[in-house]
Amino acid sequence: MKSTSRDIRIRNCFSVLRHLIADTPTSRQLLARETDLSVATVSNLVSDLIELGVVVEVGHEDSGGGRPRALLAPNADGGILVGIDVTTTYVQLEVYDLTLAPLLQREDQLDINETTPEQIIGHIDSGMKAVHEQLGGREVLGVGVSLPGQVDVAGGVSVFAPNWNWHDVPFSGLIEERLSLDVPIYLDNSLKTAAVGELWFGDGRGVERLAVVVLGTGVGVGLAVDGKLYRGATNSAGEWGHTTIHSDGRRCRCGRKGCIEAYIGAPGILRRWSEFGGDADVEAQTESMTALAAAWKAGEEAALRTVEDVAGELAVGMANLVNILNPDLVVVIGWVADLLGEALLPELERSLPEHGMEATLKALQLKVNHQPRNMVSLGAAALALEGHLTRINTVGARSRR
Amino acid sequence: MKSTSRDIRIRNCFSVLRHLIADTPTSRQLLARETDLSVATVSNLVSDLIELGVVVEVGHEDSGGGRPRALLAPNADGGILVGIDVTTTYVQLEVYDLTLAPLLQREDQLDINETTPEQIIGHIDSGMKAVHEQLGGREVLGVGVSLPGQVDVAGGVSVFAPNWNWHDVPFSGLIEERLSLDVPIYLDNSLKTAAVGELWFGDGRGVERLAVVVLGTGVGVGLAVDGKLYRGATNSAGEWGHTTIHSDGRRCRCGRKGCIEAYIGAPGILRRWSEFGGDADVEAQTESMTALAAAWKAGEEAALRTVEDVAGELAVGMANLVNILNPDLVVVIGWVADLLGEALLPELERSLPEHGMEATLKALQLKVNHQPRNMVSLGAAALALEGHLTRINTVGARSRR
Repeated sequence: MKSTSRDIRIRNCFSVLRHLIADTPTSRQLLARETDLSVATVSNLVSDLIELGVVVEVGHEDSGGGRPRALLAPNADGGILVGIDVTTTYVQLEVYDLTLAPLLQREDQLDINETTPEQIIGHIDSGMKAVHEQLGGREVLGVGVSLPGQVDVAGGVSVFAPNWNWHDVPFSGLIEERLSLDVPIYLDNSLKTAAVGELWFGDGRGVERLAVVVLGTGVGVGLAVDGKLYRGATNSAGEWGHTTIHSDGRRCRCGRKGCIEAYIGAPGILRRWSEFGGDADVEAQTESMTALAAAWKAGEEAALRTVEDVAGELAVGMANLVNILNPDLVVVIGWVADLLGEALLPELERSLPEHGMEATLKALQLKVNHQPRNMVSLGAAALALEGHLTRINTVGARSRR
Repeated sequence: MKSTSRDIRIRNCFSVLRHLIADTPTSRQLLARETDLSVATVSNLVSDLIELGVVVEVGHEDSGGGRPRALLAPNADGGILVGIDVTTTYVQLEVYDLTLAPLLQREDQLDINETTPEQIIGHIDSGMKAVHEQLGGREVLGVGVSLPGQVDVAGGVSVFAPNWNWHDVPFSGLIEERLSLDVPIYLDNSLKTAAVGELWFGDGRGVERLAVVVLGTGVGVGLAVDGKLYRGATNSAGEWGHTTIHSDGRRCRCGRKGCIEAYIGAPGILRRWSEFGGDADVEAQTESMTALAAAWKAGEEAALRTVEDVAGELAVGMANLVNILNPDLVVVIGWVADLLGEALLPELERSLPEHGMEATLKALQLKVNHQPRNMVSLGAAALALEGHLTRINTVGARSRR
C-alpha cells in the first residue's frame, strides 16, 4: 500500500527504457515527450542507466539551430538476458542483448514421459551450456523462467503444476544447484511473463488496462492495471480458462464442468472438429490444428462450423472478462491464435456484441497477434531485466546512504 | 501512466485521513505506524490537513516519559459532505461531518412513474432544502451522487441508464441549474461508490485487491486494485451481473441470455422461489425477500431449496470473478445480502471450492456484510471528500508556486 519515491523512480526507469528500446536511437528530449516526464527527470534516469552500462550514447543529432542532441541506445555490448519458456510440450530458451535482439534460440521438444523437475532442468542445463559455449564472454544479467501453474515468485517455487502433479518444487533453487549458476533466476507463471512481454515489447506498451488472452492447449489471461503487471493476491490472477460459461457443460481436464478451456483449449477445439466430422487427432495437436486451419481456408463445412462454434464460445468468455475489467486492449496470442486467429477473429468480432456491454466494447481495442517472437520467453527475459534494474537500483540507493 | 510525487502525496493524504477517521483520536506517531509512512511525512500531511480545517488537535497524551504527544481528530465542526444514493426505487440522501458521522438522513421512495431526470432531481432538491434548513450554517464541501448505469465522471453525465432509458443526461449540470448550487458535484456509478465506501470505512480499508459484490435488484461488483478504486477504461468495470454462467440459460432483463443477474438478482431469486412453490411477488421485492428469509429460517422446504440453488449460482459467478482477479477480499453487500446473506453464506462457502481455484480460495477472505450504514451514500460522500482534498491540494500547490 505504501507508495514511495523509489517505486516511482523504478517505474519511470522502466518507462524510459521501454521507449528507448522501442525507438532507438533517440534523445533525452524525445524520451521526455514520449514518457510524459520532464527532461530533467529523464536525464537523471538516463545518467543512471549509462552508469550501469545499460544505455550508451551513440552519436548526436542536429536540433535545428541549438546544441546537438546526444542520441541514446541500449548497450548492445552490455550484459545479456536469458528467457526460458517451459511448457508441457517443449522448453524454449532465448538469449537477448539489452536491445532485446535475440542472440540465440533453442527449442527442445519434451518427451511425454519427461515430467520431473530433474528432466526439465536437464533441458535448461543443455540450453545454458550452449549459451556458455557461444556467448561465454558476455555477462548474464539474469535468467527469467516461465512455468505453467501456480508459482511463488519470491521463493522461486512451483507451488502447483497440475499437468505434472508438482507440489512445492523449489525450481529456482534446483536450477542453481544443478547448473552452479551465480546469476539471479526469476521464476514466474507463463500468463505473467506473456503480459510482461506485451507490456515491454508488444501492443501493450503504454496501455493502462491490458488483457493478454493466451490460447494454447490450456487458455488463460495475463493482466495489467495501471500499465503494470497485475498478479493478484497469490500470483494466481488470470485463471480465466477455468471460468464457467456453461454451468452443466463439458468436463474440463481440471475436473470442473463447463470451463471455457474445455471449449476453446486446443483439445476442445479439435474435439468439436471431430464431432462435426473433421479429421482431428488430439494426440497430435499442432498438426491437427494446422490441418483445421487449412480446411477452414479451403472452405470445408466441418471446419467452418468448428470455427464459428469456437469463436462463439470465445466471445462468451471474452465478454465475461471485459464486462468485469473494461480494459483498453485485449491481445490474443498463443500457438492456437497463431494458427487459427485469422479464422477466429471475424466471427469473434461478430459475436462479441451479443454478450459484451456496449460502452465497454466501444472503448475496447481487440487484436489477434501473430508474433514472430515468443512473447513468453521475451517476457521472462524482460522480467529478468526488471529484476536487474530493481536490484541495482536498490543496491545503489543503499550504497549512497 | 505518469506517476508524480503529487499522486503519491494525495494518496498518502487519503491514507492518513482514513486511519485518522477510523481510530480517532490518534497521534502522528500512531498514524505513521499504521500507514507505514515516516513520522516526518505524516507530520507534513497533518499540517496541511490542519491548515485546511479538515483535522484538529484535540489534546495531548502522555508518551511515557517523553514530550506529550498531540492527539488528532477530524474536525467535526468543519465543513460537511453530502452523499446521495439514487436508485430506481428510492433517493437516499445522507449528510456527514468530517468524522463521517451522519448528521441527517432522508429517504424518498420513488413512484414507478418517476423516471425523468427532472423528477429525480426534484427529490434531490427537497433533500438539499432540508440540509439547508437544518444545517444552513455549515459549509458544504462537496456533494457525491451515485447513479445506476454508465456514468461519465469528468463530465458529470449519465451516459446510459438502462432502467430509465436515459442517454447522455448532463445530470450534474441539471442539479447545479435547478438548485443554484455553488458546490462541486461528484457524479459516479453505484458500483464505484460502493467500493469507495468500503475502501474508506468498511472492511476494504487497507486491502490491496478488493471486490465488493453488490446484491440487489441488479447485481454487480465494485473493484479496487492497489488499494485504489478501479474504474476500467470508461468507468464501466464491474458489470459482473452481465457475465454469462449458462450460455443458453434464462433471459436477463438486459436482453442477453444466462447472465448471472438473471439468477441471483432479486427478481431471479423470487422467480426461483415461486418455481419451488414459494409465495413470491416480484412486484413487491423487498417484502417478498423478507418473507423468503423468514421461510428459510422456519426451515420451509421451498425456501431451503431456493437458497441452495441461488447460492450455487452465486458460487459459479463468484468463482469466475476470483479466478480472474485473485483478490484478497470479497465483501458481499446490498439489500438482498442484508436480508438473505445469513442464509446464503454457508451454502456459498460449501459450493465455492467446486468452481474456484484452490490457491485463490485459500488466500481469499469472504465476508457478507450487514452494514448499518448505506455504503453507497457513504462512498458518494467519500468521493466528495477525495474530490475536495484533491482540489484544495491542487489549488494549494498552484498558489505556492
